[in-house]
Amino acid sequence: MKTNPGRFFEDYRIGEVIRHAVPRTLSGGERALYHALYPARGALYSSDDFARACGLAASPMDDLIVFHTVFGKTVPDISLNAVANLGYAEGRFLAPVWPGDTLSSSSEVIGLKQNSNGKSGVVYVRTTGRNQRGEAVLEYVRWVMVRKNRLEAPEPEAVVPELARVVPVSDLVVPAGLTFEGYDFEAAGEPYRLGDYAVGEVIEHVDGVTVEEAEHMLATRLWQNTAKVHFDATFRPDGQRLIYGGHVISLARALSFNGLANAQMIVAINGGAHANPCFSGTTVRAWSEVLDKAETGVPGVGAIRLRLVASSGPGTALKGPDGKYAPEVLLDLDYWALMPV
Amino acid sequence: MKTNPGRFFEDYRIGEVIRHAVPRTLSGGERALYHALYPARGALYSSDDFARACGLAASPMDDLIVFHTVFGKTVPDISLNAVANLGYAEGRFLAPVWPGDTLSSSSEVIGLKQNSNGKSGVVYVRTTGRNQRGEAVLEYVRWVMVRKNRLEAPEPEAVVPELARVVPVSDLVVPAGLTFEGYDFEAAGEPYRLGDYAVGEVIEHVDGVTVEEAEHMLATRLWQNTAKVHFDATFRPDGQRLIYGGHVISLARALSFNGLANAQMIVAINGGAHANPCFSGTTVRAWSEVLDKAETGVPGVGAIRLRLVASSGPGTALKGPDGKYAPEVLLDLDYWALMPV
Amino acid sequence: MKTNPGRFFEDYRIGEVIRHAVPRTLSGGERALYHALYPARGALYSSDDFARACGLAASPMDDLIVFHTVFGKTVPDISLNAVANLGYAEGRFLAPVWPGDTLSSSSEVIGLKQNSNGKSGVVYVRTTGRNQRGEAVLEYVRWVMVRKNRLEAPEPEAVVPELARVVPVSDLVVPAGLTFEGYDFEAAGEPYRLGDYAVGEVIEHVDGVTVEEAEHMLATRLWQNTAKVHFDATFRPDGQRLIYGGHVISLARALSFNGLANAQMIVAINGGAHANPCFSGTTVRAWSEVLDKAETGVPGVGAIRLRLVASSGPGTALKGPDGKYAPEVLLDLDYWALMPV
Repeated sequence: MKTNPGRFFEDYRIGEVIRHAVPRTLSGGERALYHALYPARGALYSSDDFARACGLAASPMDDLIVFHTVFGKTVPDISLNAVANLGYAEGRFLAPVWPGDTLSSSSEVIGLKQNSNGKSGVVYVRTTGRNQRGEAVLEYVRWVMVRKNRLEAPEPEAVVPELARVVPVSDLVVPAGLTFEGYDFEAAGEPYRLGDYAVGEVIEHVDGVTVEEAEHMLATRLWQNTAKVHFDATFRPDGQRLIYGGHVISLARALSFNGLANAQMIVAINGGAHANPCFSGTTVRAWSEVLDKAETGVPGVGAIRLRLVASSGPGTALKGPDGKYAPEVLLDLDYWALMPV
Repeated sequence: MKTNPGRFFEDYRIGEVIRHAVPRTLSGGERALYHALYPARGALYSSDDFARACGLAASPMDDLIVFHTVFGKTVPDISLNAVANLGYAEGRFLAPVWPGDTLSSSSEVIGLKQNSNGKSGVVYVRTTGRNQRGEAVLEYVRWVMVRKNRLEAPEPEAVVPELARVVPVSDLVVPAGLTFEGYDFEAAGEPYRLGDYAVGEVIEHVDGVTVEEAEHMLATRLWQNTAKVHFDATFRPDGQRLIYGGHVISLARALSFNGLANAQMIVAINGGAHANPCFSGTTVRAWSEVLDKAETGVPGVGAIRLRLVASSGPGTALKGPDGKYAPEVLLDLDYWALMPV
Repeated sequence: MKTNPGRFFEDYRIGEVIRHAVPRTLSGGERALYHALYPARGALYSSDDFARACGLAASPMDDLIVFHTVFGKTVPDISLNAVANLGYAEGRFLAPVWPGDTLSSSSEVIGLKQNSNGKSGVVYVRTTGRNQRGEAVLEYVRWVMVRKNRLEAPEPEAVVPELARVVPVSDLVVPAGLTFEGYDFEAAGEPYRLGDYAVGEVIEHVDGVTVEEAEHMLATRLWQNTAKVHFDATFRPDGQRLIYGGHVISLARALSFNGLANAQMIVAINGGAHANPCFSGTTVRAWSEVLDKAETGVPGVGAIRLRLVASSGPGTALKGPDGKYAPEVLLDLDYWALMPV
């Protein structure tokens, strides 16, 4: 059979490096589509002039364009037979990606743990996205639950990697040349700098976006993510197409402009959970909580650690008394962004 | 509260200049999306070669891409709390915009008039779009009805600007270098030149386009227009998303290719009314009436003044005996375009 | 009447060359949209680096972007009053198209045959797409059934062109410089080379994509195809919009990546039938049959002749015992693609 059946739990080996297929050159086209698909307004990713005033050669590709492109390539090898996308950790953006750059990705298997039912297991991979010069532009750990195909395949020795709960500030990579001296707050859209945010502060981002089938499929295809469940209405018994979790991440991040316009670049993803599935017709809202603040070592460039929650309802519910996510919570993402001090 | 609540009527002052946020760099990506979103076929905005044969360096961005981009930036400051978008006047395209250019916009408050009910008022702004060199590329006057937040706020002295009913021909700006000598009518799609049109002539543009939710939201986001009513199905009591009026303008203008293929560039917007709201599922049609014809001073380059009407039904109904727009009329736009003499 | 009523059967003359309107410059924007609209993953059309490793200057525009762009221009002159799109033959891609190229197209009438009912006839045209230097990049024969407008118009002498059932291998044009020496199968996504495929082999491409109205309309507009039936829900008595046949071609071709990842470039279209109409809500699947294999004369670059079938159901049904297409078959396309030997 020449088609790709995807890998099953027993097909992974600790230490194995999987090189994912189909390198991809990005251009102004992907950027324009990103703006059409998400209500993204971050000035650094919108304007060459704004980016130049911040010391960069031009406006880089949105960090989440990079994330989706690198992630999409991993799907045929990592998550085609995944039952669930369980978590992210130690995500770091290592260098800006520019229009014209070509991205490829590879993943190292860093953990394996068969479930007690013997029918599936958890696979941990560290994925690295690289540009055409081989420079790493993004790395992150993801773990997914994958079905076994041959139930009789031997159970591998369990290896569960130790993962940082939060990317340390000292590991954050500030793009070379980035400066927020002379940062134009008026052009950026809001006057708030790092000092204006308090740890524990919660920001409701007020706007909502109702998602259509055509939109999330356009987006998911754009990242060459091939998981059937996003595209094929006959795949699930209920006839619904599951929206790619990354689509919800981008929607929520774009909505968070309203209140966090100066959280310009994501530099780290500390963790994330797709708390509940999202389907077409949902009106996605977002709120953020300030988890931490830090200096980066680059004068004027601070880091803000944010919890970004996407929700299908109003308000800022997160978890119930049972510690489980409230049913309206779609996403709980923990990330570091750069912000003027 | 860090999110933008929008301005209310009492927040505007005559003479105040509001610099709108988020400059935006445009590329071939926005052009491709424009062609995907609207049935646009104008040769000058479709082909570098055609544009070069018309004396330009390359194909500029469609004039309505420029309009939408400049307009979108004004929404958070001008129309977030608008009850109605009342009119346009004195719109002029002042210089072509090229892929790679970065647009920003600002608005001067030029009129204020509180309504007799004391609950809202009309705000008149003159908006200017500029490129990265600070050159004005577009200016227009728009007036909107905006709610008051504090009803007790004092009524400002009423100032209603005098606005030209029609942009005088002498104020039309023909792009530097533009020539229609050697204009290729066959490549452009129709043989009709200015002399072939008669004042009073009505052209039914025959085609219709049924609008989907995904399409108008993609478009409206592309222009970074953030008005909730376009995106959030929970915002209106009837659960409908209102289609951005500019989406209807672009649809109608694109449909008008069929009969007006040589009305190549819009150079002025004399006035416009969004006569009735438009919702997903509507089949938008268009008809035009020739209102005037003129020489521009550039040999061979004429100007044609057109009424462009978008309608949800067939035929060329405009207003009833009561002077009100017929219920199927969505848009009544009055503009000048350049056409070979 | 200034709008285009389209041509009727009696308006065509053997030997006549129709130059189609509106040249079009393509960019990275069209490429990005192609990736958003179709699950296309071919490495040569995705990555500049992969293409350079194959001896090309950069990644060319997908062959089907070229096909759709050239085809779209013919619609107002050839198929606006078509009752049916009957077939394709002798299609050849003659030179790569690069971002920045401007395409135009023209068609020569090479056959005419009035139907016995006297109400319509078949028009055969050979269409040529050219770049801004006048170089032919694509040619193909298409024949359509077109209504007569004046039934009393004289019946033309019947001319039915002799068309090759298959483009001979010796007529296939391998792009200058193309080499598959050092071809990176891992980056391309599959290990299979020409020798791994057997004539008669059938590949089910496993994935399915459910089509939305917004998607096929975005696509069809992008190619400036103006046929009303694709856009106007009021046009057909059943209120359905017919999906442009080329949209189904691109969907099926993209789905065929899974099993044919190394069938990199389409170089010829031998024939094709839009077996049944396709409407929004259909889940499109695809299967391929290997019809032939050949050497191209360029060392290492082989040609594979494939039947590509798009279907609205699972399985590999094609025709019933009556020789008619099974009701689930949407497309039956016969083409040559280049593949590493």
